Amino acid sequence: MARWQPDASERLAAAALDLFEEHGYENTTVIEIAERAGLTKSTFFRYFKDKREVLFGGGTVAGLLAEAIAAAPSAAGPLDAVADALDALGRTFFTADRREFSGRRRAVLNATAELREREALKRIDLTDAMIKALNRRGVPGLTARVAAELGSLAWEIAYDQWIGTTHGEEFGPLARQALADVRADAAVC
Amino acid sequence: MARWQPDASERLAAAALDLFEEHGYENTTVIEIAERAGLTKSTFFRYFKDKREVLFGGGTVAGLLAEAIAAAPSAAGPLDAVADALDALGRTFFTADRREFSGRRRAVLNATAELREREALKRIDLTDAMIKALNRRGVPGLTARVAAELGSLAWEIAYDQWIGTTHGEEFGPLARQALADVRADAAVC
Repeated sequence: MARWQPDASERLAAAALDLFEEHGYENTTVIEIAERAGLTKSTFFRYFKDKREVLFGGGTVAGLLAEAIAAAPSAAGPLDAVADALDALGRTFFTADRREFSGRRRAVLNATAELREREALKRIDLTDAMIKALNRRGVPGLTARVAAELGSLAWEIAYDQWIGTTHGEEFGPLARQALADVRADAAVC
Repeated sequence: MARWQPDASERLAAAALDLFEEHGYENTTVIEIAERAGLTKSTFFRYFKDKREVLFGGGTVAGLLAEAIAAAPSAAGPLDAVADALDALGRTFFTADRREFSGRRRAVLNATAELREREALKRIDLTDAMIKALNRRGVPGLTARVAAELGSLAWEIAYDQWIGTTHGEEFGPLARQALADVRADAAVC
């Protein structure tokens, strides 16, 4: 397997995380992030609309979720399609080589009010992406909203477990288990 | 019944909404909001930590939700306690005399990225307030999270229905119905 080569957006994210840890989010500029990554400010803005965005993947996550939901077997129920989307996240973004980065990212987000706000909006936007993808499969409005919200909650639970794991558990199976637990609880609460 | 008298925080919110509609969120300052409300900048900051906060009730909503969940009958299940919290919202904040304001507020929020971010974070913080209140009733961690998330979704659905209603429907009953619908969908999706 070829050695993993970060692309420009990932180099920018890694540089930003380093700088946020070293100097704080407020005290770091986009120019400094670009310089640390060996890139230019205009390259930064090709990937991210502002400084807040740099730790959020620049909009590629929504497309991945939508594709995975569209590709789920036609017999799959709404939550099964959502589980496939979480699996795709685990294969594509939350891979073992990114676990350490993800834990550091979580700590910076928790400590930075502006990033917590952006994260909260991301969650809503990514939930919306799943809702729309479910709608395109013919899942009616409210059912799609409920399935996507339960999926977002399972994602959040599994992400915290994954960054804290010490035995190499993978995100996908953790998310499937979290979704099963959430589904069981939703049926009785 | 006495005529409704807005307190300082509500006068500030009303002034802010007027100014955001007239000049846009970006072009409005805290000083202008305070002046329009006939108050001072320092009074503004007694109620709200920043300009983004002025349309979000200044932190009083979380306490109301927690109190209502604590006050639910001991036999009430998690979602029943959440329904009581939504009822309390309807009696206290989403009253008929505030419906027109709420619809205008919704439009300004939808049009303003910074306010959408703050709203997204509010949703998470208010969901957390419900989770903690449920935990204090002895509802275990995951069940409390699921119940609070379903409650937040029902709130969002009912709020949009309420601001769009033309026959004077009240928020509380709309929220109870939305919660019942969400619960039924969660059981089958």
